[in-house]
Amino acid sequence: MYLPILILFALLSSSYASVNDFCVADLKLSDTPSGYPCKKASMLTEKDFVYSGLGIAGNTTNLIKAAVTPAFVAQFPAVNGLGISLGRLDIASGGVIPMHTHPGASEVLVNIQGTILAGFISSANKVYYKTLNKGDIMVFPQGLLHFQINSGKGSVVAFVSFSSASPGLQITDFALFANELPTELVTKTTFLDPTVVKALKKVLGGTG
Amino acid sequence: MYLPILILFALLSSSYASVNDFCVADLKLSDTPSGYPCKKASMLTEKDFVYSGLGIAGNTTNLIKAAVTPAFVAQFPAVNGLGISLGRLDIASGGVIPMHTHPGASEVLVNIQGTILAGFISSANKVYYKTLNKGDIMVFPQGLLHFQINSGKGSVVAFVSFSSASPGLQITDFALFANELPTELVTKTTFLDPTVVKALKKVLGGTG
Amino acid sequence: MYLPILILFALLSSSYASVNDFCVADLKLSDTPSGYPCKKASMLTEKDFVYSGLGIAGNTTNLIKAAVTPAFVAQFPAVNGLGISLGRLDIASGGVIPMHTHPGASEVLVNIQGTILAGFISSANKVYYKTLNKGDIMVFPQGLLHFQINSGKGSVVAFVSFSSASPGLQITDFALFANELPTELVTKTTFLDPTVVKALKKVLGGTG
Amino acid sequence: MYLPILILFALLSSSYASVNDFCVADLKLSDTPSGYPCKKASMLTEKDFVYSGLGIAGNTTNLIKAAVTPAFVAQFPAVNGLGISLGRLDIASGGVIPMHTHPGASEVLVNIQGTILAGFISSANKVYYKTLNKGDIMVFPQGLLHFQINSGKGSVVAFVSFSSASPGLQITDFALFANELPTELVTKTTFLDPTVVKALKKVLGGTG
Amino acid sequence: MYLPILILFALLSSSYASVNDFCVADLKLSDTPSGYPCKKASMLTEKDFVYSGLGIAGNTTNLIKAAVTPAFVAQFPAVNGLGISLGRLDIASGGVIPMHTHPGASEVLVNIQGTILAGFISSANKVYYKTLNKGDIMVFPQGLLHFQINSGKGSVVAFVSFSSASPGLQITDFALFANELPTELVTKTTFLDPTVVKALKKVLGGTG
Amino acid sequence: MYLPILILFALLSSSYASVNDFCVADLKLSDTPSGYPCKKASMLTEKDFVYSGLGIAGNTTNLIKAAVTPAFVAQFPAVNGLGISLGRLDIASGGVIPMHTHPGASEVLVNIQGTILAGFISSANKVYYKTLNKGDIMVFPQGLLHFQINSGKGSVVAFVSFSSASPGLQITDFALFANELPTELVTKTTFLDPTVVKALKKVLGGTG
Repeated sequence: MYLPILILFALLSSSYASVNDFCVADLKLSDTPSGYPCKKASMLTEKDFVYSGLGIAGNTTNLIKAAVTPAFVAQFPAVNGLGISLGRLDIASGGVIPMHTHPGASEVLVNIQGTILAGFISSANKVYYKTLNKGDIMVFPQGLLHFQINSGKGSVVAFVSFSSASPGLQITDFALFANELPTELVTKTTFLDPTVVKALKKVLGGTG
Repeated sequence: MYLPILILFALLSSSYASVNDFCVADLKLSDTPSGYPCKKASMLTEKDFVYSGLGIAGNTTNLIKAAVTPAFVAQFPAVNGLGISLGRLDIASGGVIPMHTHPGASEVLVNIQGTILAGFISSANKVYYKTLNKGDIMVFPQGLLHFQINSGKGSVVAFVSFSSASPGLQITDFALFANELPTELVTKTTFLDPTVVKALKKVLGGTG
Repeated sequence: MYLPILILFALLSSSYASVNDFCVADLKLSDTPSGYPCKKASMLTEKDFVYSGLGIAGNTTNLIKAAVTPAFVAQFPAVNGLGISLGRLDIASGGVIPMHTHPGASEVLVNIQGTILAGFISSANKVYYKTLNKGDIMVFPQGLLHFQINSGKGSVVAFVSFSSASPGLQITDFALFANELPTELVTKTTFLDPTVVKALKKVLGGTG
Repeated sequence: MYLPILILFALLSSSYASVNDFCVADLKLSDTPSGYPCKKASMLTEKDFVYSGLGIAGNTTNLIKAAVTPAFVAQFPAVNGLGISLGRLDIASGGVIPMHTHPGASEVLVNIQGTILAGFISSANKVYYKTLNKGDIMVFPQGLLHFQINSGKGSVVAFVSFSSASPGLQITDFALFANELPTELVTKTTFLDPTVVKALKKVLGGTG
Repeated sequence: MYLPILILFALLSSSYASVNDFCVADLKLSDTPSGYPCKKASMLTEKDFVYSGLGIAGNTTNLIKAAVTPAFVAQFPAVNGLGISLGRLDIASGGVIPMHTHPGASEVLVNIQGTILAGFISSANKVYYKTLNKGDIMVFPQGLLHFQINSGKGSVVAFVSFSSASPGLQITDFALFANELPTELVTKTTFLDPTVVKALKKVLGGTG
Repeated sequence: MYLPILILFALLSSSYASVNDFCVADLKLSDTPSGYPCKKASMLTEKDFVYSGLGIAGNTTNLIKAAVTPAFVAQFPAVNGLGISLGRLDIASGGVIPMHTHPGASEVLVNIQGTILAGFISSANKVYYKTLNKGDIMVFPQGLLHFQINSGKGSVVAFVSFSSASPGLQITDFALFANELPTELVTKTTFLDPTVVKALKKVLGGTG
């Protein structure tokens, strides 16, 4: 008697095989403009949809006294194709996340612990910055320069959400001074003195 | 004398090889967030763009006295990447398409034969339902719970269009009672009595 | 005792006011690139989501012996923003929907009654055409020239679905010959003889 | 001497007026399918980009012992058009966020405090559920039924991110039992007994 | 002393591997609805992002005295997934780019040399045409019929930009007369005389 | 006798009123996330689709010896909603377009006159730069730092195309030094010496 409805169910199920409710990334295949090809749904378990890498504080014993721990598609393949990803910020006392952009996503930060001075700069060169207390959230629109500074006494923990599984990250100082871009070109395009450029290249590992 | 224009034509054609006017799904390759990789255009004939599977009435000799016949990307690879797909509803006298959602698409139904009582529920929990006569069309916005009931005497035939090649289909009862989700979890998250949950699990083939 | 949950419910509802599950077009306001501004949800009833205009056969007593009845956003505001719309084709015996494109959408046709010879032409100038029997569906990818001919004996009824609420419609003959585009420009850009152009302008109401 | 570059700067700035780096919602105007019209950039200050409403625990003294505090576009207009929004979950001991969907967005949850048993059900009716410890994140794909249960001893705090400024929220029980949808229609479309439906309607405030 | 920041840098870099700032097409793999799969970033050099094919004038010694040189994804794989591509028009004195559409993109033309009479026809059959002098730019919206005529004395050079990496190109005359579409079908769907159709088929290489 | 087809034509035209083939911006209304509301189609002429502002060389008598002339939606409302816009670069001998990003669009440059040394920096901090001769085109992916230098003897003219009607423009030096962002914050987030920051603020008109 229950057979007929099960037949309907089976019929309906036949279309399920290719439904992409989700598309957990198969990182071994080539990326595409919309994200990675999907792993077969039959190979997936609940573990594919959970990630524990943001539960551990990043190592902040470095010059900027801060760490960014990403849960982008490369670390957490389940966000592939969903238009969202996360990250964790740890900023020790006196630490700073330097001026940077995310070329591929807007960001919302939620402050979990400590006090943050955060800001961004618009295309019109207007600056928006504010002190964020515990529980405050702030928006950083796509592609705009922004920064986060630990402006309190203890250490800072924050989570950041992005409107893409692959937001990218371009830290201005690293982009300008931590590669082989010739000093002459940096100078010409930033108005900075060659001596300043060379000094920063030395600190950040750049050549040329 | 006609040669020069043919040369132009050939030149222009050289760029055609990769133009994706369409992208008929190669279902043997892995799906991506934007759909399946395309079959080579040179392999396609007019048969790839036509599907006859919706011309046949679905089998309604089951408990719900209804059948859904999909022409999604899995059945009709030509819709891949085009943001559209179709389906056919057959509802025998007294039959019903139970409460369900399409997680990935909005739907428009056109009533071809019979009388349908159809409705959906908004995020604000407001209910919109109405009797549809022959030729009437109705919208069911993406992701919202909706249903169709044969409220007339004869059988119903309707075609449904979706704003995605892969709209998905989640029938609430099957999602809750036709799988291994433990009775305790169903009870806690639906306020339904364990006896009710177990009874429905029995009807629908669920365990746990 | 039931009060607390109602408070939660009220709390949740406070965010519902602006949720755009749907966005029924307010045609009195200016259109935007994503569609019309929305009517207030509180003003909507079930009637806003149902349209009966496709239930009536179009008038085919004209030269092409055919009629297209649209249920685009202008006729059926509920499809606004949902990426989908519908239309109805009536083609009397000997009738034809002339060569045309939809600049803004892909199309899927479902043949409800009669026999149709339908086809489209790709960017690579390859022609795909086929006879469609009752229940057959066919895809016409966005922006490509296509046509439908009643190739049987009785009249044809078909429904067409589009991947946009505003697919547009450009009938090649009307675009070339039914407006004030000067005969000289039509001639230069189509290789057609001025006498042919002028004759068609006369039939279709063009000037210049 | 510095004048010329300022002239360039002014020239460049003239195009800034209409650049939509961001589009903070003007909630007094009509919504559109892509979001609300923008407030004038000249009216905005840093306060428009920061929201403090998630810093306060939601009131969990209700039947489900849980609260959802949204920071969607209605509460936090800065997320308008950015494809992202946030929310806060508070779940007291023994509490639960009942089975629900977000019709308009995928979700990622980050567990800040306590122990959560969370899960979702796919279109193929497969269930994925797992215990989330502090710092764990989990994905809930768009439109799929999911739930969160406080499975530990203390209270739970979690933040949820969405891939839309207006994700929507449809709690299955409220959609079925907390409105005027007639008992007969609920019964027919859910296979639930009228007595069960009526009992739940009574608890949840439904009529009919 | 500089080591710690380099460790941070390395940490951050670990997430860079899969960031798709860009997705240069691997044309050997199958296309997808969102574009071709990406070449590995480690294989790319500056040469992949530069194309010199538009620096050479197209051969205009043909019947239409014009040439279109595309820099679409097939010729310039760097535009893959970026929603943009380019082309070059060369039109000798007396030459013309015949009536055509781009099914997949809007176009903006910039006139570099000479005088162009350009126009397009809307879905409402309204014609917009104008003489373009050196430096003038003109928009041709997606999917609409348009043309460019050298209306001056010398030769014309223009660059055209498209809102897609794969805009497609359908020249109406070639679509109608340069393939195997039977004369009878062309006649029925265009109102053109069979003798006209056959004559144009002969010129343009069509059969049937 | 020609009346009937005109009736069909009129019928079809009735749906044309709201077809958005294009959406020329009404800059007096509020912008939306998808662009400006549209001017009424009946108010438009061919002049709305043509712009002559890029035909005039920009004034390069300034410190950077360069000028950017935009044809974004603010200057050329016809591009609204079409996902494309243009600009013109004039770079005198010795001039430079300083390091900058476009937060909202990818760019393709076509070199019309002179010799350009152009480059961009990826999220992985890899630098891609190359000399562009006349006719060469180069891609600058969305949101990434890039620059153009006149590396030849004469002046440079180039046209740039963008994948958005509103690409935005953030010149790094102006963002950091030409506003009221306090020197202390610039120093902390860029590793630059306060003396360097203050000197650049003085040159570029910044305060604080």
